[in-house]
Amino acid sequence: MKKQWYGEAFKLGVLGGGQLGRMMIQSAMNYDVHVYVMDASKTAPCGTLAYEFTEGDIQSYDDVINFGKDKDVLTVEIEHINVEALEELEKQGVKVFPQPRVLKLIQDKGLQKQFYQENNIPTAPFHLIENEAGLEKYTSELPFIHKMRKGGYDGKGVAVIKTPEDFDGAFDVPALIEDKINFTKELSVIVARNEQGEVKSFPVVECEFSEELNLVEFLFSPADISPALEQKASNLAKELIEKLDMVGLLAVELFLTEEEDLLVNEVAPRTHNSGHHTIECNYVSQFEQHLRAILGLPLGDTAIKTAGVMVNLIGEKNFEGPAKYEGMEELMKMSGVYVHLYGKSTTKPNRKMGHITITDQDIEQAKIKARKVQEVIKVVTF
Amino acid sequence: MKKQWYGEAFKLGVLGGGQLGRMMIQSAMNYDVHVYVMDASKTAPCGTLAYEFTEGDIQSYDDVINFGKDKDVLTVEIEHINVEALEELEKQGVKVFPQPRVLKLIQDKGLQKQFYQENNIPTAPFHLIENEAGLEKYTSELPFIHKMRKGGYDGKGVAVIKTPEDFDGAFDVPALIEDKINFTKELSVIVARNEQGEVKSFPVVECEFSEELNLVEFLFSPADISPALEQKASNLAKELIEKLDMVGLLAVELFLTEEEDLLVNEVAPRTHNSGHHTIECNYVSQFEQHLRAILGLPLGDTAIKTAGVMVNLIGEKNFEGPAKYEGMEELMKMSGVYVHLYGKSTTKPNRKMGHITITDQDIEQAKIKARKVQEVIKVVTF
Repeated sequence: MKKQWYGEAFKLGVLGGGQLGRMMIQSAMNYDVHVYVMDASKTAPCGTLAYEFTEGDIQSYDDVINFGKDKDVLTVEIEHINVEALEELEKQGVKVFPQPRVLKLIQDKGLQKQFYQENNIPTAPFHLIENEAGLEKYTSELPFIHKMRKGGYDGKGVAVIKTPEDFDGAFDVPALIEDKINFTKELSVIVARNEQGEVKSFPVVECEFSEELNLVEFLFSPADISPALEQKASNLAKELIEKLDMVGLLAVELFLTEEEDLLVNEVAPRTHNSGHHTIECNYVSQFEQHLRAILGLPLGDTAIKTAGVMVNLIGEKNFEGPAKYEGMEELMKMSGVYVHLYGKSTTKPNRKMGHITITDQDIEQAKIKARKVQEVIKVVTF
Repeated sequence: MKKQWYGEAFKLGVLGGGQLGRMMIQSAMNYDVHVYVMDASKTAPCGTLAYEFTEGDIQSYDDVINFGKDKDVLTVEIEHINVEALEELEKQGVKVFPQPRVLKLIQDKGLQKQFYQENNIPTAPFHLIENEAGLEKYTSELPFIHKMRKGGYDGKGVAVIKTPEDFDGAFDVPALIEDKINFTKELSVIVARNEQGEVKSFPVVECEFSEELNLVEFLFSPADISPALEQKASNLAKELIEKLDMVGLLAVELFLTEEEDLLVNEVAPRTHNSGHHTIECNYVSQFEQHLRAILGLPLGDTAIKTAGVMVNLIGEKNFEGPAKYEGMEELMKMSGVYVHLYGKSTTKPNRKMGHITITDQDIEQAKIKARKVQEVIKVVTF
C-alpha cells in the first residue's frame, strides 16, 4: 500500500521559511499535509504557520541532518542549502526533492552552464573564470555579464561589465562571464515532474524586468508569443527537467532573441516568483503542483483560467522599519485584484514584501489595471 | 489615523477553531492579519495554524473574557458562545463582530422568529412552546417541524413531527414548531456589512439537501432562478442585515415556495457551508469578505467568476478512526476540482471532513462532474 501523505502520519519538511514556503503551507492546508519548516528566524514568513517550526541554519550540516532525519519527504524553498547533509539524508532513506545532485548543479552557475552545453540545451556563450584577474583575458569580448558561480540571489551577484575600467571592483570569486544577449523578451516556463515520470508545464509567461531593481517588475500571463514559440519553450523546459532527471518544480528563465531563438538563462528547482499568478490564473497553482510532484501524486491541470499580471510589492527606497501598506484600502476596492502579503514585519528598500495579482479576461485590460495598482500602493513605514 | 489591522500591532481573536476558522486563517494570511484562536482542543482544525492558539471553552464566561480582553477585534466561527462575556468585552472597548446582541438573538430560534415577525421579514408561521407537553395544543396543525430554541447545529435539534405518536420522545426543552413548508427550492444568500454601513450580497445559491443526513449535499452556484427572484432574495438579505444592524457576514437560508414566495428559514451570523464555493467561484471569497467586514475595510466584489458545485465530504457510515480519503488520487486527476480537507485526524459517520468545489463555465457540466466526484471519493479509515 502506498504510504499516506496527509494527516499525522506524514511529515513534509521544508528548508527555508520565506514567502515561497508560506504560500506552500497555504496550499498544503487544502490537503491536510503537515508542513514542518526550518529557518534561522522564528519571525520568518512561515514562523507561526508551520505545523512545527525549527530554528536552524539551512547551511549547517548538523542542523539540516537533525531537522531532516525524521521527515518522510524533504523539500526546499531556496536552493542555498547544505547539500552534503541532503546527500546523507537521501542515503538514510529520506526522500529529498529536488534531489541533492540537482541542487548541487544548480547552486553553481558554472556547473549549470556546463550542463546545458553538454546536453545541447541552448544558452548564451560563456567562459568560467577563477577570480577578478580572470576577466582580463576576455577584454576583446566586452561588454559581458559577470556572474558569481555561487551565492547570487534576487539580482545579487550579477553585474554588467562594459569596459576594462569595470574590472576593478568586480567580484573576486569564481565566476562566469557570458555574452550580453540582445533579447526581445524574457520568458519563463515552470515545469513539474513527479517520481512516476509524469511531466507538465505551465503556459509561458513574460517577465518585464526593472533594470533599476534587477527584479521582475511585471509578469504577464499569457506571454505575447506565437503558438509555435509557446510549444518550443514548453518542450525545452520539459527536455530540461527530464535531462536533469529531477522530481519537483523547475522554473526555467529564457531569453527570446531577435532571431526568435530561445536561450536558457537560469533555472530554479523550486516554486518561483514568475509563477505566483498561477494561484488565481491557472487551474492548479505552482504551490500545489510542487506538492503534487514531490508527494508522488497526479500533476494538476496547468491551463489558464484567466489572463493576469503579477506585480511585486517592493519596499520603497528611503523607508526602513515597520511596514505600512499605503493605498491598500483603495486597492481593495478594485475587482479581480488579489493581495498577497508575506508577513514580514519590517520593510527595507527593495525588499519583496508581497505581490499582487491582477486578473482580467483580457490581458491588455489587466495591464492597464496593473499600472494603476502600481501607482496606488506603496510600502513605506509608520 | 486609522488603526493598523495587519502585522504585529493588531490582534484578531476568533472564538472556535473549526474548519470555518481554518479557512479564515488561510484567507487572513494574504493580508498578514494575525489570527488568535480559542478552542477546547489543540487538535481542532485551527490548532497549529493560528498565530497563537489558546485552549479554552467558548461557553465559559471566564475563558472568553481572558481570551478576548487584549484583542482589537473579536469574531466567531460558531454562534454558541458565552454572550454575557462578549457583552462585557464590548463594554470594555473590544470590537465584537457580529455584535453580542445579534448573537443572542440568533442563538435562540424563538427570538429569531419573533424578530422576523416584528420586522415584516417573511418566514413560516410558528408557535413557541415550553416543553414536550406544549406540542399537544397544536395537534390540529400537524404535520410540523419541531426545533429546539437553543443549541441546535448541523441538523441536530430539528425533527419532523407527523402524528401525535411522534410527541412521545420529542425534545423536552423550549422549542418552536413551524409549518412544514412545501418548498420548491432551498436557497441561500450570504450578505456582508461593514461598520461604515456598506452592504454587499453574494449571488444566490441553491442547496440540495440530503434528507438522510439533514445536511447540504450539493450546492449550486448560480441558483437556477429568474433575475427578478435573484434580486428579491438579495434585497431580502440586505434588508435583514440592516434591520439587525449587524457588522460581519450573515448567511440567510431561504425557502422558495410553490407560489414563488421567499421565506426566511434560518440565519447564521458568520461564514457558512453554503458559501464555500466562493473561494474558487467568486471574485472575493466569503472568508475574505468576513475579514473585510469586521476590520472596517471596503467590501470585495461578490460577482461570479465561474459556475460551480460544492459537495461536502462526509465521513462514511460504519467507519470511525483515522481518516482515509479513498479515491483522492483519482479525484486529483480531474480538472477544475478543488479539494479542501479540514485537518480532522479522525472520521466518524456523517462528520464534515472537508468539501470539494467543482468548477465549470457551464453549471450543468459542473453538476455532471460533481456526481462523478461523489462516486469517486469516500472518507473511510485505515
